[in-house]
Amino acid sequence: MLLSALLMSVGINSCLCVLLFILYSILRKQPHNYEVFYLAVARYIPSVRWIWKSWRPSEEELMESSGLDGVVFMRMITFSLKVFLFAGIIGVFVILPVNVFGDQLTQINYADWSANSLDIFLFLAISALFFIACRLWVHFGAIYLVTAFVCCLLYLEFRYIGMKRIEHFHSSKPQPNQFTILVRNIPSSDGSTVSDTVDRFFRENHFSTYLSHVVIHRTSKLRSIVDNAKKLYKKVHHKKADPVRVKKTPMRFFSRKDTPEGHYEKVLQELEHNIRLGQAEVSSPGKEVRAAFVSFKSRYGAAMALHMPQSANPTYWLTEPAPEPHDVHWPFFSASFMQKWLSKIVIAFACLLLTALFLVPVVLVQGLTNLSALEYFFPFLTLILSMKIVSQIITGYLPSLILQTSLKIVPPIMEFLSSFQGHICHSDIQKSACNKVIWFTIWNVFFATVFSGSAFYKLSVILDPKEILFKLAVAVPAQASFFIAYVVTTGWTDTLTELFRVVPFMVSYVKRSLEPTEEEFEVPPMRYHRDTPRVLFFGLLGITYFFLAPLILPFIFLYFILAYIIYRNQFINVYEPKYETGGMFWPMIHYTMIFSLVLMHGIAIGLFALKKMELATYLLVPLPVFTLLFNEFCRKRFMPIFTAYPAEVLTKRDREDQNDPRMGEFYHNLVSAYQDPALRPLRFSGSRNDSLTSPLLSSTSSEV
Amino acid sequence: MLLSALLMSVGINSCLCVLLFILYSILRKQPHNYEVFYLAVARYIPSVRWIWKSWRPSEEELMESSGLDGVVFMRMITFSLKVFLFAGIIGVFVILPVNVFGDQLTQINYADWSANSLDIFLFLAISALFFIACRLWVHFGAIYLVTAFVCCLLYLEFRYIGMKRIEHFHSSKPQPNQFTILVRNIPSSDGSTVSDTVDRFFRENHFSTYLSHVVIHRTSKLRSIVDNAKKLYKKVHHKKADPVRVKKTPMRFFSRKDTPEGHYEKVLQELEHNIRLGQAEVSSPGKEVRAAFVSFKSRYGAAMALHMPQSANPTYWLTEPAPEPHDVHWPFFSASFMQKWLSKIVIAFACLLLTALFLVPVVLVQGLTNLSALEYFFPFLTLILSMKIVSQIITGYLPSLILQTSLKIVPPIMEFLSSFQGHICHSDIQKSACNKVIWFTIWNVFFATVFSGSAFYKLSVILDPKEILFKLAVAVPAQASFFIAYVVTTGWTDTLTELFRVVPFMVSYVKRSLEPTEEEFEVPPMRYHRDTPRVLFFGLLGITYFFLAPLILPFIFLYFILAYIIYRNQFINVYEPKYETGGMFWPMIHYTMIFSLVLMHGIAIGLFALKKMELATYLLVPLPVFTLLFNEFCRKRFMPIFTAYPAEVLTKRDREDQNDPRMGEFYHNLVSAYQDPALRPLRFSGSRNDSLTSPLLSSTSSEV
Repeated sequence: MLLSALLMSVGINSCLCVLLFILYSILRKQPHNYEVFYLAVARYIPSVRWIWKSWRPSEEELMESSGLDGVVFMRMITFSLKVFLFAGIIGVFVILPVNVFGDQLTQINYADWSANSLDIFLFLAISALFFIACRLWVHFGAIYLVTAFVCCLLYLEFRYIGMKRIEHFHSSKPQPNQFTILVRNIPSSDGSTVSDTVDRFFRENHFSTYLSHVVIHRTSKLRSIVDNAKKLYKKVHHKKADPVRVKKTPMRFFSRKDTPEGHYEKVLQELEHNIRLGQAEVSSPGKEVRAAFVSFKSRYGAAMALHMPQSANPTYWLTEPAPEPHDVHWPFFSASFMQKWLSKIVIAFACLLLTALFLVPVVLVQGLTNLSALEYFFPFLTLILSMKIVSQIITGYLPSLILQTSLKIVPPIMEFLSSFQGHICHSDIQKSACNKVIWFTIWNVFFATVFSGSAFYKLSVILDPKEILFKLAVAVPAQASFFIAYVVTTGWTDTLTELFRVVPFMVSYVKRSLEPTEEEFEVPPMRYHRDTPRVLFFGLLGITYFFLAPLILPFIFLYFILAYIIYRNQFINVYEPKYETGGMFWPMIHYTMIFSLVLMHGIAIGLFALKKMELATYLLVPLPVFTLLFNEFCRKRFMPIFTAYPAEVLTKRDREDQNDPRMGEFYHNLVSAYQDPALRPLRFSGSRNDSLTSPLLSSTSSEV
Repeated sequence: MLLSALLMSVGINSCLCVLLFILYSILRKQPHNYEVFYLAVARYIPSVRWIWKSWRPSEEELMESSGLDGVVFMRMITFSLKVFLFAGIIGVFVILPVNVFGDQLTQINYADWSANSLDIFLFLAISALFFIACRLWVHFGAIYLVTAFVCCLLYLEFRYIGMKRIEHFHSSKPQPNQFTILVRNIPSSDGSTVSDTVDRFFRENHFSTYLSHVVIHRTSKLRSIVDNAKKLYKKVHHKKADPVRVKKTPMRFFSRKDTPEGHYEKVLQELEHNIRLGQAEVSSPGKEVRAAFVSFKSRYGAAMALHMPQSANPTYWLTEPAPEPHDVHWPFFSASFMQKWLSKIVIAFACLLLTALFLVPVVLVQGLTNLSALEYFFPFLTLILSMKIVSQIITGYLPSLILQTSLKIVPPIMEFLSSFQGHICHSDIQKSACNKVIWFTIWNVFFATVFSGSAFYKLSVILDPKEILFKLAVAVPAQASFFIAYVVTTGWTDTLTELFRVVPFMVSYVKRSLEPTEEEFEVPPMRYHRDTPRVLFFGLLGITYFFLAPLILPFIFLYFILAYIIYRNQFINVYEPKYETGGMFWPMIHYTMIFSLVLMHGIAIGLFALKKMELATYLLVPLPVFTLLFNEFCRKRFMPIFTAYPAEVLTKRDREDQNDPRMGEFYHNLVSAYQDPALRPLRFSGSRNDSLTSPLLSSTSSEV
């Protein structure tokens, strides 16, 4: 890639940045968005005040608006900011000058720099590394220093978030999932229903703490009927409640029998009848799944049943923490054991295949964007392509854009795949998808670029443990120019487009203000499995390249500043958390950072060995070992907080509740908290009033 | 090795066998051994009735006399008997004839067989395998069949022993370790002792079940003084109580001041004083270790505290099951964290070194036993060595004997090393030593023989995953003759000498009957870490060679019959279990068997691939995969029973105890069950009477 093409990309990118910022700062001040942004001044004049404002909100506000997951997400960005401020200072003010004042610089023709390949720029960083062995000691020291800094920060962050998690638990209201566990593989006993078996077992073995249970039923068919009915009801209800439309179609109102509304109501009545029949059928013992949500009188009681092995046959009475009631992913309970098992294997295989072979079509499409290919396929473009600016856009900007755009389809695919993997709650699906996307990105962007060649060649490189360090040491520095281009061309724009994810939300808000309905206002959830891997990947790039090409560090620092402003100002303020994983994303972030560090060490060891600096090589070997030991220590020290709450925390909360008069009501609600939504009484028509259905009810009951 | 030399070894071995059996059957009937063997007929006439008797005792008797560990040990032998009966029938009646009637047999000169190398014998097994590819399908079928049979048996055994474990728990009396857990890493809190901290923590967090606790103190110095004092006291007491000796030295009795007894008593008094001072000093809060035994009112309560994470800082309040009180290995509690950590690393390194390099001296010594070396070093032996019978003994019997004898020093070394590894009870030390010896034997006997060469060469073979199967396929069949020789030469004798482990016990018994003392009669414990690996290794040999050299199977079957008779008839009856691991040896046995199966599969795959039988190779590949999946299933299905007792079992036992009037007394004793023996009141002299010390006391108090 030519330097001029790169500069062109930076130019495009920066212009887009400014444009998007201006657009956004105007849009957010429009009257329809008042209620979203709580601002009402100086419309149509772009301003920067909101940027400064975004630095201000405290973590408590963030916690309130986006939950612990939002806090963890933002801490990931501030963590990266700290790391790259430190690494950037060392990289730019220590490593870069050491390289610049190396002997080899005299050979560069500065006059002709713009026509040179980008590698000249990087020469500042790498040339010295390759030719002046003694200067490697500076890099050696920098590697130790940065590793120590990152590890210290990781420790502090892990501790802080673990503490926050417990604080969050202490300050939370009593929640059904704190008092409930999910029990699976309930053994069948002759002549008694699953419900009876559960009741008997827990009355016998946990008599002092057991409260109630809800057996899960096979409701997949019923659920689809209920969903259809709800959609239809919404449609009808929306039309009824819409005064504009009513005015527009006055004629139809008189000929009731023929109105679509009348027709819909009949259909709804039928559906309602079907649902009632279905509910009665599903509630029979024959449709019971051998799984149940079991609730206890105290958090301590639930934890006790969760942690203790229950049965003499350890494959029965398997316990796991219950998710929040609205977080439960009901469809998968109905699947049989074989179905679950098969789908797990199939999904794992599909993920591996997608990850390994994703690049094949992308590289093919990217190949079409070089000038000669374009001229061959579209001869009429020859004139335009001969313009310098166009050719620079095409070589510098288009390939990255294609890669970045095709990467956008990955998170939804991974989420879709994860949803079939047997997870019982949406948050687990998100976590699993997030993990998949992280490794997908590292494999398809980092390793695919570093080891250019077929997917199988790459696989063989990774699987050959003896050679991998040397191959990395040769291949990684050679790709520095690509990754700088990657950061400056697509990194910024990509993150900026996030600003406009808010647009559909704004549109629906505008529509609502024009046509007021009683429909629930649907706030889009934060999609962590999409945003976390992207941010983490820039972190990995920064850590891996910090001593190879320190020039990358200011760009990555800028990226994180941008990311901070963008994510802090809104998304977090606009999006509403649908469910809370309680900071479960942090361990993933931690492990990815550790992976980045060890990867960086591996590259450094390979590089030092290639340069025949034996002492430095041997002195570096303990570093990845210590990093992995540190990781092991963190895992032992902090992970238990992320898997279960300890006894002392539980008993403290339980004791606080003892004198709370509201607990009676809470227990009353707890008994039915985990009722399958498909089995809840639903009335689209009928004689009784229901807050949700009353408008329709009153009309339909008088009509029929 | 020549066949004639091998036959000579078999001859020696069989003669030794018969001799040992005769000797033993006479010895056991002598009057001093009456009480041991409960028999009093036909002394001095060898008999075989006891052999038949050994088949009779039921498992209940075995359980009573040697605990669950004894049952597990015997089931390992009966399990092997079943496996090798089945594999032997297939091997001898199917695989052997297929090989014998192969085309290649006509080339053998049967007339000259005794002069041929042993490999001719094995040719029956291997030649066909190497030359008649189509016959490999018979081997292929046999491998599948035997694997399925072994896996079925393993499943049944694991289930049976798991069930026995729970039965054993159900039928056991209330034991302190069932109600107690060990808590480590108790955090320090300002101004309060560890004891106070423990009390406060458990009263707060487990208020309904907590009973009492015993904080552990640093007593290593004190313990050595107490041990010395006890030894001295025993000595003095023994002399006093010994009427024969008193009569023999009447003069000394009058000049009391000068008697050694008087001197000893003075020393004892001093020691007692020192011990009291030491106990007072050690009991102070400053000498507290941050660990405590915490007892609960019920088994369920103890299990609850054991399984639940206790603290918001997961490195504090670590819980583990308490060992039986007399099983506690006190010395290691006093060690500091750094000491423990360092000793763990040092011991692991020492074990690896010992395992990897043990063979170097042994091979050197074995090298001395070839004829030319002996003639060189001991020229005067030339005449004797030229005798055929002597040379046959030396080449056929001596090398195996040297290997076997040097292997005998390994179990005590491994036990010694394990005792420094931070285990808190003797049974864990035994288990750990057993594991070490198993892998030591497999490495040093199996792999060392198969890959003859330096230890580092062997290591490089094992670490090269691509080539290992082919190397095994070439090397393992070539060593069949060695292993047949190994089984027939040393296997039998080695096991038979076990009969005579009882001799020192008999001697002390005889001495006791001649000079009655009040000393406690010390029964030697069963040394599982020595016997289990030996038996398992023969199992591994049989499974690995069953299709390569079916001739080995009858020998191995005979070995197991011998082992059954020998181990069943006294050792188990004579030895008394000192502590019970509750069948914890079974998982080790199970994993070793799985390892043997997978090793056998690996060799078969390598062999089929070498013979270019591609279809058979691919059809065999799923077999190790399924075996490992089966192992994983067994681990999931049964291992939880071996790590903790489930809630339903605990609550059942607790409920049974509720109405037991003896529980009051049990709780009373429970409070002090885990008192450090070095801190218990000890009186060698003084004014109060003590059943143990009273004779000495009365005399000393009047004297002084």
